[in-house]
Amino acid sequence: MRGAHRVLAGVLRRGTPSLGSKTVGGFVRYSCKFSSSATVSAKPHIRPGYVILGAGLACGAGAVLYSAHLRKKTLAATLEPVFMAQPITDMATLQQGSDMRSRMELLILRVQSDVCKAIEELESTEGDKKFLIDRWERKEGGGGISCVLQDGQVFEKAGVNISIVLGNLPPAAVRQMRARGKEFKTKDDSGLPFFAAGVSSVIHPRSPNVPTIHFNYRYFEVVEEDGTRQWWFGGGTDLTPSYLDTEDVVHFHSTLKDACDKHDKSLYPKFKKWCDDYFTIPHRGECRGVGGIFFDDVDEPSQEDAFRFVQSCADAVLPSYVPIVKKQMTCGYGLAERQWQLLRRGRYVEFNLVYDRGTKFGLATPGARIESILMSLPLAARWEYCHDPAPGSPEAKMVEVLKNPRDWVESQ
Amino acid sequence: MRGAHRVLAGVLRRGTPSLGSKTVGGFVRYSCKFSSSATVSAKPHIRPGYVILGAGLACGAGAVLYSAHLRKKTLAATLEPVFMAQPITDMATLQQGSDMRSRMELLILRVQSDVCKAIEELESTEGDKKFLIDRWERKEGGGGISCVLQDGQVFEKAGVNISIVLGNLPPAAVRQMRARGKEFKTKDDSGLPFFAAGVSSVIHPRSPNVPTIHFNYRYFEVVEEDGTRQWWFGGGTDLTPSYLDTEDVVHFHSTLKDACDKHDKSLYPKFKKWCDDYFTIPHRGECRGVGGIFFDDVDEPSQEDAFRFVQSCADAVLPSYVPIVKKQMTCGYGLAERQWQLLRRGRYVEFNLVYDRGTKFGLATPGARIESILMSLPLAARWEYCHDPAPGSPEAKMVEVLKNPRDWVESQ
Repeated sequence: MRGAHRVLAGVLRRGTPSLGSKTVGGFVRYSCKFSSSATVSAKPHIRPGYVILGAGLACGAGAVLYSAHLRKKTLAATLEPVFMAQPITDMATLQQGSDMRSRMELLILRVQSDVCKAIEELESTEGDKKFLIDRWERKEGGGGISCVLQDGQVFEKAGVNISIVLGNLPPAAVRQMRARGKEFKTKDDSGLPFFAAGVSSVIHPRSPNVPTIHFNYRYFEVVEEDGTRQWWFGGGTDLTPSYLDTEDVVHFHSTLKDACDKHDKSLYPKFKKWCDDYFTIPHRGECRGVGGIFFDDVDEPSQEDAFRFVQSCADAVLPSYVPIVKKQMTCGYGLAERQWQLLRRGRYVEFNLVYDRGTKFGLATPGARIESILMSLPLAARWEYCHDPAPGSPEAKMVEVLKNPRDWVESQ
Repeated sequence: MRGAHRVLAGVLRRGTPSLGSKTVGGFVRYSCKFSSSATVSAKPHIRPGYVILGAGLACGAGAVLYSAHLRKKTLAATLEPVFMAQPITDMATLQQGSDMRSRMELLILRVQSDVCKAIEELESTEGDKKFLIDRWERKEGGGGISCVLQDGQVFEKAGVNISIVLGNLPPAAVRQMRARGKEFKTKDDSGLPFFAAGVSSVIHPRSPNVPTIHFNYRYFEVVEEDGTRQWWFGGGTDLTPSYLDTEDVVHFHSTLKDACDKHDKSLYPKFKKWCDDYFTIPHRGECRGVGGIFFDDVDEPSQEDAFRFVQSCADAVLPSYVPIVKKQMTCGYGLAERQWQLLRRGRYVEFNLVYDRGTKFGLATPGARIESILMSLPLAARWEYCHDPAPGSPEAKMVEVLKNPRDWVESQ
């Protein structure tokens, strides 16, 4: 097992966790450093309120008709031994459960761990920064694990969060989480039993040559008053470079396309367009980045098929990104490139604060864990009045692509 | 006449302006450097669309009952010889006009010039940066002058904008501009004849010891279908320090209070509270700064009295702020103070992008001049995950005040 601060799931024994707790915006925050035999984090007392998933919960336009032919995998394949902290749900329950809630929690725990491990490995080539791990619980049920690596040599700010939310939500709030604004059958506005589990991540590298990546995969359940269980998946992965390297973008999109194509060849072109449409900054007339895939309301053809599709997409994150980081991270740059990157980071902030549905929903939700929602914001950003890249410059070429989204791979 | 780039109003002769034009977000931008005898800027061809006033158009709760006993001043007192660029309205019309549109345009032209001159004088003690002047016109009528001093020694980014908007606006858009959402009499949704004139400014100094100031004063007119002319004023001035210097804050509030008290002693306490309520960042549970005054919908007791009150407030900006800058600008600071300032700038960005009504309205308005709206954003900002000032530190003392707004001066 790599690293001393992981939890060995399945061999849970009470150990001697080193806990650093402090209050952050009303929350008691726990930084847990586990010794290799210490595997249980304390359960902090959390103030009441909704805790919502990070950025990018849902959005876009049009119906999603997801149909796929999926290979069968056994549940065992999702059981990984190493997580970043103790799961939110009791481990015995998770291991026994074959229901989608358990399977999704295990998936996001594993994806979080995989990504954090890969980021720390890349970081270790130039620095020694590790992820800070905050495990928090909600009084009403659920909780989350926020992992943030900040001020590293390779990564300026990398956040990988998971959260599980259980409870009652007003129908209007639940409706907001679906792009299609579907109605739910309920007697009154007292709230619908609701479950959400998701992983959300934004990784901002230090070098302007290495693009920022964002991904988010999530599962929702709502129980209507007649007992009907509505469920759906959402998610996506997208890339935001400061400078255009066509080869990198083609590699990124190809990897995502392959992940989609395994299930249904109609998925990538649909979700690629949805991504371009969603990650748009209308007041700038440009996209946030070079896109990727984005989907919401995926509730077809079966829960099993939809889950396997989401799993494929989540598993494509590292292969789509790590080769780009390795290729670009040692390339030189100067102050001018850094300043341009900071201006692009400013645009990232504009999108996230003004348009991102998940962020807006989170900020408007009383009791939300603000630090987890806003971990998507870069460590540093810049706004210059009327900055215009010189015609023909690498900066101008980047803007040209952001203003006119391209097809990076053949759709069929 | 100080500075070679002012316009001598009233002695307008066609000169030899040195014009640097480039396209910014669809606008043709003119940077005008006037020689002392060159006084007329060119009229660029501007793309159609609404151009709206900068940040902080309106908001808050409760009715404003403004009544005042105002000293009489002659119109001549508002005629100043030096503006930053040629007025938007023809100068002959402005000089002859005794209507409120002309008087307000002359007031904001003068305030813009006074503030820019004072900022340049302060900047000249340590650097040589001057304001960049962009004069732009709207095809539909009106236009603006944006003045930005960026990357100076004393001031990191200072923007002082004026704009005049003439045209038809949908009733819904006009309604949004009033805190009380007043209805207007109109036959259909084709638009109400609308006029707005305002000055808007945000000044971000470089030193963490010098607070940021924001002010905005504006006048609106709407003509209803039966010919009734509705008019109202709005405005405010507020201060955002990174570190608390009680003496400075008391000076700031006292100056604003004096300006209000000359008209009616009930105004300052009401508008001070409105300011605290408006400049709040709910998701952080704190105010953006230490407040000041904020008001909207001022349409009493008479147009003349309301104008004179606004004039007093606008004239109080420099006396409220310049002494603080002079006192603090030479005090030393280190990296830690600078980093803290950048985090506070991050909160400034959060407020402006997420909550400020003027900014939100501007970003949502097709054809708006985005660079003028977003000039309020700082040159640099920072977001650290779960940053907590050490208890008892100067940073913690600042946050304490932001979380619990104080009364800085006796209200009566």
